[in-house]
Amino acid sequence: MNFDYDAVTLEYRERLLSFMDSHIYPAELLPHSPELVDELRREARARGLWNLFLGLPNLQYAALAEIMGHSPSLAPAALNCAAPDTGNMELLASFGTAQQRERWLEPLLDARIRSAFCMTEPDVASSDATNVDTRIERDGDEYAITGRKWFATGALDPRCELLVVMGKTDPTAERHRQQSMILVPRDTPGVTVLRGLHTFGYDDADHGGHAEISFAGARVPAANLLGSEGSGFAIAQARLGPGRIHHCMRLIGMAERALELTCRRVTTRVAFGSPLAAQGVVQDWIAESRVRIEQARLLVLKTAWLMDTVGNRGAHIEIQAIKIAVPSTVEWILDKAIQAHGAAGVSQDTPLAALWSRARTIRIADGPDEVHRRSLARRELRRYT
Amino acid sequence: MNFDYDAVTLEYRERLLSFMDSHIYPAELLPHSPELVDELRREARARGLWNLFLGLPNLQYAALAEIMGHSPSLAPAALNCAAPDTGNMELLASFGTAQQRERWLEPLLDARIRSAFCMTEPDVASSDATNVDTRIERDGDEYAITGRKWFATGALDPRCELLVVMGKTDPTAERHRQQSMILVPRDTPGVTVLRGLHTFGYDDADHGGHAEISFAGARVPAANLLGSEGSGFAIAQARLGPGRIHHCMRLIGMAERALELTCRRVTTRVAFGSPLAAQGVVQDWIAESRVRIEQARLLVLKTAWLMDTVGNRGAHIEIQAIKIAVPSTVEWILDKAIQAHGAAGVSQDTPLAALWSRARTIRIADGPDEVHRRSLARRELRRYT
Amino acid sequence: MNFDYDAVTLEYRERLLSFMDSHIYPAELLPHSPELVDELRREARARGLWNLFLGLPNLQYAALAEIMGHSPSLAPAALNCAAPDTGNMELLASFGTAQQRERWLEPLLDARIRSAFCMTEPDVASSDATNVDTRIERDGDEYAITGRKWFATGALDPRCELLVVMGKTDPTAERHRQQSMILVPRDTPGVTVLRGLHTFGYDDADHGGHAEISFAGARVPAANLLGSEGSGFAIAQARLGPGRIHHCMRLIGMAERALELTCRRVTTRVAFGSPLAAQGVVQDWIAESRVRIEQARLLVLKTAWLMDTVGNRGAHIEIQAIKIAVPSTVEWILDKAIQAHGAAGVSQDTPLAALWSRARTIRIADGPDEVHRRSLARRELRRYT
Amino acid sequence: MNFDYDAVTLEYRERLLSFMDSHIYPAELLPHSPELVDELRREARARGLWNLFLGLPNLQYAALAEIMGHSPSLAPAALNCAAPDTGNMELLASFGTAQQRERWLEPLLDARIRSAFCMTEPDVASSDATNVDTRIERDGDEYAITGRKWFATGALDPRCELLVVMGKTDPTAERHRQQSMILVPRDTPGVTVLRGLHTFGYDDADHGGHAEISFAGARVPAANLLGSEGSGFAIAQARLGPGRIHHCMRLIGMAERALELTCRRVTTRVAFGSPLAAQGVVQDWIAESRVRIEQARLLVLKTAWLMDTVGNRGAHIEIQAIKIAVPSTVEWILDKAIQAHGAAGVSQDTPLAALWSRARTIRIADGPDEVHRRSLARRELRRYT
Repeated sequence: MNFDYDAVTLEYRERLLSFMDSHIYPAELLPHSPELVDELRREARARGLWNLFLGLPNLQYAALAEIMGHSPSLAPAALNCAAPDTGNMELLASFGTAQQRERWLEPLLDARIRSAFCMTEPDVASSDATNVDTRIERDGDEYAITGRKWFATGALDPRCELLVVMGKTDPTAERHRQQSMILVPRDTPGVTVLRGLHTFGYDDADHGGHAEISFAGARVPAANLLGSEGSGFAIAQARLGPGRIHHCMRLIGMAERALELTCRRVTTRVAFGSPLAAQGVVQDWIAESRVRIEQARLLVLKTAWLMDTVGNRGAHIEIQAIKIAVPSTVEWILDKAIQAHGAAGVSQDTPLAALWSRARTIRIADGPDEVHRRSLARRELRRYT
Repeated sequence: MNFDYDAVTLEYRERLLSFMDSHIYPAELLPHSPELVDELRREARARGLWNLFLGLPNLQYAALAEIMGHSPSLAPAALNCAAPDTGNMELLASFGTAQQRERWLEPLLDARIRSAFCMTEPDVASSDATNVDTRIERDGDEYAITGRKWFATGALDPRCELLVVMGKTDPTAERHRQQSMILVPRDTPGVTVLRGLHTFGYDDADHGGHAEISFAGARVPAANLLGSEGSGFAIAQARLGPGRIHHCMRLIGMAERALELTCRRVTTRVAFGSPLAAQGVVQDWIAESRVRIEQARLLVLKTAWLMDTVGNRGAHIEIQAIKIAVPSTVEWILDKAIQAHGAAGVSQDTPLAALWSRARTIRIADGPDEVHRRSLARRELRRYT
Repeated sequence: MNFDYDAVTLEYRERLLSFMDSHIYPAELLPHSPELVDELRREARARGLWNLFLGLPNLQYAALAEIMGHSPSLAPAALNCAAPDTGNMELLASFGTAQQRERWLEPLLDARIRSAFCMTEPDVASSDATNVDTRIERDGDEYAITGRKWFATGALDPRCELLVVMGKTDPTAERHRQQSMILVPRDTPGVTVLRGLHTFGYDDADHGGHAEISFAGARVPAANLLGSEGSGFAIAQARLGPGRIHHCMRLIGMAERALELTCRRVTTRVAFGSPLAAQGVVQDWIAESRVRIEQARLLVLKTAWLMDTVGNRGAHIEIQAIKIAVPSTVEWILDKAIQAHGAAGVSQDTPLAALWSRARTIRIADGPDEVHRRSLARRELRRYT
Repeated sequence: MNFDYDAVTLEYRERLLSFMDSHIYPAELLPHSPELVDELRREARARGLWNLFLGLPNLQYAALAEIMGHSPSLAPAALNCAAPDTGNMELLASFGTAQQRERWLEPLLDARIRSAFCMTEPDVASSDATNVDTRIERDGDEYAITGRKWFATGALDPRCELLVVMGKTDPTAERHRQQSMILVPRDTPGVTVLRGLHTFGYDDADHGGHAEISFAGARVPAANLLGSEGSGFAIAQARLGPGRIHHCMRLIGMAERALELTCRRVTTRVAFGSPLAAQGVVQDWIAESRVRIEQARLLVLKTAWLMDTVGNRGAHIEIQAIKIAVPSTVEWILDKAIQAHGAAGVSQDTPLAALWSRARTIRIADGPDEVHRRSLARRELRRYT
């Protein structure tokens, strides 16, 4: 057992931290625009900080994704490591045909286009994948897609060209073989992006929003199917494991950012004759935040190590464990950071309220906490029965 | 001891509940506009549901404010019972000169104009009133106001004509005699409304937003002083007590609304083969929500009763107690309601996320929880020393 | 609505508080013995503080039971208001025949004998009354009782002469008509008190312990049946409602005692240069304790008022609500009181650890929190289906 | 970074687990006696499971101490790895003279005698070491010790021969140079073991209890001083670091034991028609317990690794972090395990209540949580000032 980062990780960390200092944090103060992000991308690429999610083992990437989490609305985009594109690129790399990879993966790796993932549906509890209502029906050389999706992050971005859609090709098949995944160009006739969903009051327009999309018999070539018919559930699982750990890595970084902001704030803000930092309750928050971050980070790192050494299936319990633990832990830390900032904490003058809404939303996204807890408990119980 | 509402309360409750059903809930589904609110106001007034905060004892008003809390962005405005106008009207009624009342109170009671309250400042911890940095300086027949305020709710509303401003007239006076309160027309030269502050992404534009305002030596007639020089702190206290209980009353109503929405949702939403309502964790949330609401409401009602029977000073501990207990309790209930609604819960498709941001913000507004806890503890300790 | 105690309550409170000061608190410092309790009983009786649980409405009794809770191992016994005798006396008064009342109720009202209640069984989840495994079988003029009970509080007291036993007379009857209640003299052949159960490390020997008892075909006259065959479940419900509120009333008093001890302790104990009372975290505990006590007490009082005005059935939800809320609230307050007392808090030098074990145990006794939450949630949900 | 146990650890784990199965768990069911422990000691020694705390690096020992925590009242004693002897042996090994080691360390390593550590005092807040009131005064060739200590664990054991006592040799010296540590034979005239303290009703007699001891000018040879005059605080720090991590390691094991007992219980116990394991709330406890254990264990292991690689001072923050996190985490898990066991959970029929009282007590022992949080927060804040 050894808790040191390896040399590759240490080198990347240093390079990334330097980029954060020289480019990302300064950019946070500027008005966000596509041009700003493009400029950051050029710089990141020049520094060899590009598509890191693809080449590196999870354990090495974890340390870097955490740092990106210090500035989650700029850094991941700047390094082409932002969801949902990362997950979609992984799917194309693993399951795409040569043709699919050429058409979609390459421009995504170049950040020339963006993509969205269409899984959740407004009308059913989507945490239960068998509830998926969208149909993908074969008709000659084409598939026709009919249904309604929402919280398709990124789909409102003008550069978004690809929708990865999950639906049922065979509702009569075995429970986990009914679903398929298909690649749908956003401009396909019958595809209508209806509106953007908000999370708390945020519309996330910078990142292409969270779209509700109607598929009214939209037709795509049969060659657009990702993998084979009936493999949709398995592909989704393959996508969600890494997606969840990426979220958790970034959340750790968000917590570190919040704790740093809090420490800076309370040492300078004075109430009732002394800095807030002298108040026992504030000290309690700081200590507890540090203690929780350390524990959460270690579990994320161990999970990454397991994914690298025994594979995503072998790390299944740990992936669930971090999905349960990290968002709520970070939400707690952000809540205390907000409280320490007073009115500024809930406003746009600090990143805290927006970070909080991310953490809170992740307690629901990719399966609510309760579904993961139930599943993890059942595995635990299975040892004794 | 008796826990029944009296006959007056019961009659008003029925009248208000009927108005909620016939007008408020239907209006929630329409796009909000000043015209919509005006129409609701006409109807409320016709039904004798107008300015209830002024005439009724706190205990009777509590039961009605709770019901308004079912729809906090429409009902209080419709009944002319919305903060910060209510508090400002109370101040004018209690401390205003005849001239001040004629000029400001009458149009406010008629809802012809709106007003804002300017106390919190961005640069100091305003929960400690002695930190207030804004200056109100006498110069001949006028006062000149210099300083910066923020979170002045309502000030961005085009109808807002009055700013009630707290500042220091004598920084050398005794700690609680330095402050004064003054009435400043919004169109006074030297007053600049700089921008709107957000709370968790919400700009609250419907209600006139939360403004940051600069006062650059803005001059008003000396007759605009509210009360006497040095009475600002006492006036603020007089305003904040009722303001806090009004918040708490509405918060109870918000919690009831959330619990009802949750119950309706979970009985119809199916996952893993049964309605969410059959899940033990969801039942736990519902039971715990009910138990917490009942306790919180009773403490709010007792506080109202104390204010009516022994006065605001005699109810000081209880006012602090509800300010500590109710926002965090209701925040907890709203969090569970959001979780029970899944993605819809964080979106604009339910009122829950916006209600949550209100409850969370109130944990900071009018003094953060920590300041009230400290103060309440000191009183408790004083019994033994 | 009115939150004042009535004149009768105020007079009793004063009388009881004076007895606490003159007799109970001093007695706490003496070694406990049956003789000490007998002496306190004589004094209490002389002062008209005797069997108060029987004559007074719940609302008046609540205020007095709370005060008894300041010293729960002495005061209830001294006033002949201690569980399980109170519940058993209520049963005999409500459901007993003249003969049963003469034989058992009279000596109980005189505190000449004690009694135990035998409901919980070691081998089944007794919170589900249909699980009860003990058999009560008619055989001629007698009933034969066979089964095993535990946590029969008081049964190890040498003066204990009566066991009130719940069992099944007809396992084939409708779910809630299978059970009956029967009066079993402790010296009946076939009754064996096997051992005392501990709660945490406490054996509760002062109060007759918590016994495990074997019934090996023990025979009693048919006339010992309490009520009619099949009425056992209904009788148990009748007993548990008041029993639960009595527990909650005393728990409030325990919380007040703990808070007072904490305040006294922290004002005199010095660490790192100032009294503990100056530490923000300690102040937080004190404020939060006060806020929670006030809420919990009001809900208990309202429940008592409901029981008096609409009956135990009409107060069903509220009885569940206090059973859910009060023990865990008071446990929290006791935990903080212990922490404020350091090592003394966990030891026998303060009453806190013993009080804590009472509160913790009540989260399980008379139905664990989870069963009450489930039941309360179902009623809440029923409004919407 | 690597999360595998090394080969040595794996071998020891297997050996120890086999001993637990063959000897410790069966012994749990027998009445405890000194003879039983002696027999277990002989067997452990024969298997090479003896004094492991001394030879092994912290990281290797951590994995073994966790397993001992499965049965904390037998296993540590059986392997001669029980507090406070372990800490005292470490002190003697590090700071003792040849003569001190011969007289005390050797019989302790052989488990022929036992020892106690006398630091905490009843009359002062001992978490602030400068509060220590006991005097150690030089008088010719002797030191005279005057003061009162309590919670001296083990001192009531008939085999206890050594008291390690902390007191002040020079109250006028610099804050952390006033204290010294001295070795006092228990049978020294002037030493009186006054009584045993309880923790939540438990007297811990099996392990020699927690004694209150009076030192009335007890005289020992000057050669009994451990280290030099004024080094007492530094020696205490050296002792407490490893002591704290040992506690935390064992606590993790206690949590694992509780979780296993819970899983076994809920799969077999039926209420309302299905096993408790089918209830969502119970599943929630199990999942959350697993998630918390995994995080806590990793932080303990990392702390052990840091102590091995950068020393106890370098691991200072992490030692504090685990002292803050682990006892309260494990207390939470034990609380849920108790609840899942119903009445049996609070009784002597499961180890849970006793384990709980250990975890709860450790939140106070060796410095209450609040002191550690304050200290950790100050270090965190120091980075920014």
